[in-house]
Amino acid sequence: MSTDDPFRRRRAIEMRTPRDTRFQPHTALGEGAEFDAIRRMIERWGPAARRIGDDAAVITTLGERSLIASTDTSVENVHFKREWLTPAEIGYRAAASALSDLAAMGAKPLGMLVAMGIPEGWRRHLDPLSDGIGEAAMTADAPVLGGDMSRSSELTLTITVLGTARDVLYRTSARPGDSVYLTGNIGASGAALSAFRSGGQPSPLSRAKFVRPVPRIREGVWLAENGAVSAIDVSDGLAADLRHIACASRVVINVDVGTIPVFEGVDSIHALASGEEYEIACTSPTDLDVEAFERRFNVPLTRIGSVTRGEPDVVFTQNGSVVEPPAGYLHFE
Amino acid sequence: MSTDDPFRRRRAIEMRTPRDTRFQPHTALGEGAEFDAIRRMIERWGPAARRIGDDAAVITTLGERSLIASTDTSVENVHFKREWLTPAEIGYRAAASALSDLAAMGAKPLGMLVAMGIPEGWRRHLDPLSDGIGEAAMTADAPVLGGDMSRSSELTLTITVLGTARDVLYRTSARPGDSVYLTGNIGASGAALSAFRSGGQPSPLSRAKFVRPVPRIREGVWLAENGAVSAIDVSDGLAADLRHIACASRVVINVDVGTIPVFEGVDSIHALASGEEYEIACTSPTDLDVEAFERRFNVPLTRIGSVTRGEPDVVFTQNGSVVEPPAGYLHFE
Repeated sequence: MSTDDPFRRRRAIEMRTPRDTRFQPHTALGEGAEFDAIRRMIERWGPAARRIGDDAAVITTLGERSLIASTDTSVENVHFKREWLTPAEIGYRAAASALSDLAAMGAKPLGMLVAMGIPEGWRRHLDPLSDGIGEAAMTADAPVLGGDMSRSSELTLTITVLGTARDVLYRTSARPGDSVYLTGNIGASGAALSAFRSGGQPSPLSRAKFVRPVPRIREGVWLAENGAVSAIDVSDGLAADLRHIACASRVVINVDVGTIPVFEGVDSIHALASGEEYEIACTSPTDLDVEAFERRFNVPLTRIGSVTRGEPDVVFTQNGSVVEPPAGYLHFE
Repeated sequence: MSTDDPFRRRRAIEMRTPRDTRFQPHTALGEGAEFDAIRRMIERWGPAARRIGDDAAVITTLGERSLIASTDTSVENVHFKREWLTPAEIGYRAAASALSDLAAMGAKPLGMLVAMGIPEGWRRHLDPLSDGIGEAAMTADAPVLGGDMSRSSELTLTITVLGTARDVLYRTSARPGDSVYLTGNIGASGAALSAFRSGGQPSPLSRAKFVRPVPRIREGVWLAENGAVSAIDVSDGLAADLRHIACASRVVINVDVGTIPVFEGVDSIHALASGEEYEIACTSPTDLDVEAFERRFNVPLTRIGSVTRGEPDVVFTQNGSVVEPPAGYLHFE
């Protein structure tokens, strides 16, 4: 995929309250012009901002649980093209993408707020658009609690999700000795995007993964309650997303590319740059009960690597040799 | 002001949990094409949406307090024009407008999430834009907790505010016998907008009210804790906003136009259609301690009318005669 892939330009910036407060929040983000802009903004805000850097913000406590919130924008021609998706799929996908940030924190949804910017030509598609949002809401048990509607020149959906978590998964909590796990497989979304962008039609299965991603909400809660300590959802591509954990936790993440489950027909190396997968990558100091997870969710859970000490980095090996993920996977401009 | 005033197109749609659950949520909204679209969406969502209709959603409880959330979008050329405001003012105003919805619920802020759609030409203004947001955050003690940044073809700021309230002010809680109160005065924002739209420059005082509205956060909490039961912030214009309370509570709201404090030089009748004022209109079954309020906040609090039984309506009288607010104040299309 090319270096200006618009899907990689999106990244939720959120507060974190890590167990370990040594790290400045903005150092938790990886490289890239977008993250530079965010870092600069956080510096200027100073006391007007709280610690930012996870998939979602941890705001306050509700008894033994934490209140979690995240906001996520989908813009026509930036995050999707009209001709790729039906209006219902656009609505569903925007909501699912926001809900995935709750999954990455191990949070159970309370609901969502839906802000819509609707161009004139989109008004007649409001029914299927809202049906798609409603479907995602029902699937994740995250009812629409409110919203805002305004005119705009391009379709813009900003969805804010709220949830609670007992055990919160932070990007800063990975430690040397942890194992790295991945839910599902990766590569289908990137394959669909490549097909769309070259003017073709993706295969039905890869298209399904692209247009109807399932946020791993229940899986995220299970992971948090069964040993995982840090996590991220795969939205920029596994390589870029693991880098966020490595930077935030100041560790080296080592991944054996051969162990990564990839979508049929997709090259493992290319799959590392496949964004918008919405699978969960996590680390755990103890062995996760893979069999129990797979029995319960009918979704694969695979150990793909380990965490070691060292300058923050992600190292991919294949057949014993270090390999580089596709050039440009960290470029946001 | 003309009937296609873009400022009236904006209206937060939010969940409510009224004490009295007789009313369907979508009947709580007034007339207008935008509200028709929202009503239709809520109907289609069915169980995928919760009760919507207040300035903000009441989501869950935190001990003796309720968790409140609202989302609000500001779009360039819809909610403001670039030449009217500095980048810092645009940032401040977008955040203040969102925070005002917390004030209308009697809620104290926890913080906000900032989703930005940034066009290419706006990138060099990110510093002052974020400074303005930061200033609003500091003023209201509502730190930035997280956000999202993406490209877009027009500047779009969607700000989600979170807060808590002990005594929640619902639109549905006005009852016959209540008195109607208004904080501050109205008309300045409309006067500034008229000047901007006719290509002129507003007076410094009216401009200040337009570009630096102060969300009545502390005032809203005081009102909720000192007798007020229902409230709304003046964003569509006092006439339109009181209509939302009248419809939601199924009451008649009677306002003596002569008692409404208006900005110097503005006609009282025109002031009724002045939007984006961010003053609070509320109802209370008991007399509010106006003197204590004014001493504490150095802001006027004025009794402007009363609530009576009857088909939902807002009736304005001047010198004993019924008067009509400016034509078009309820038109959103």
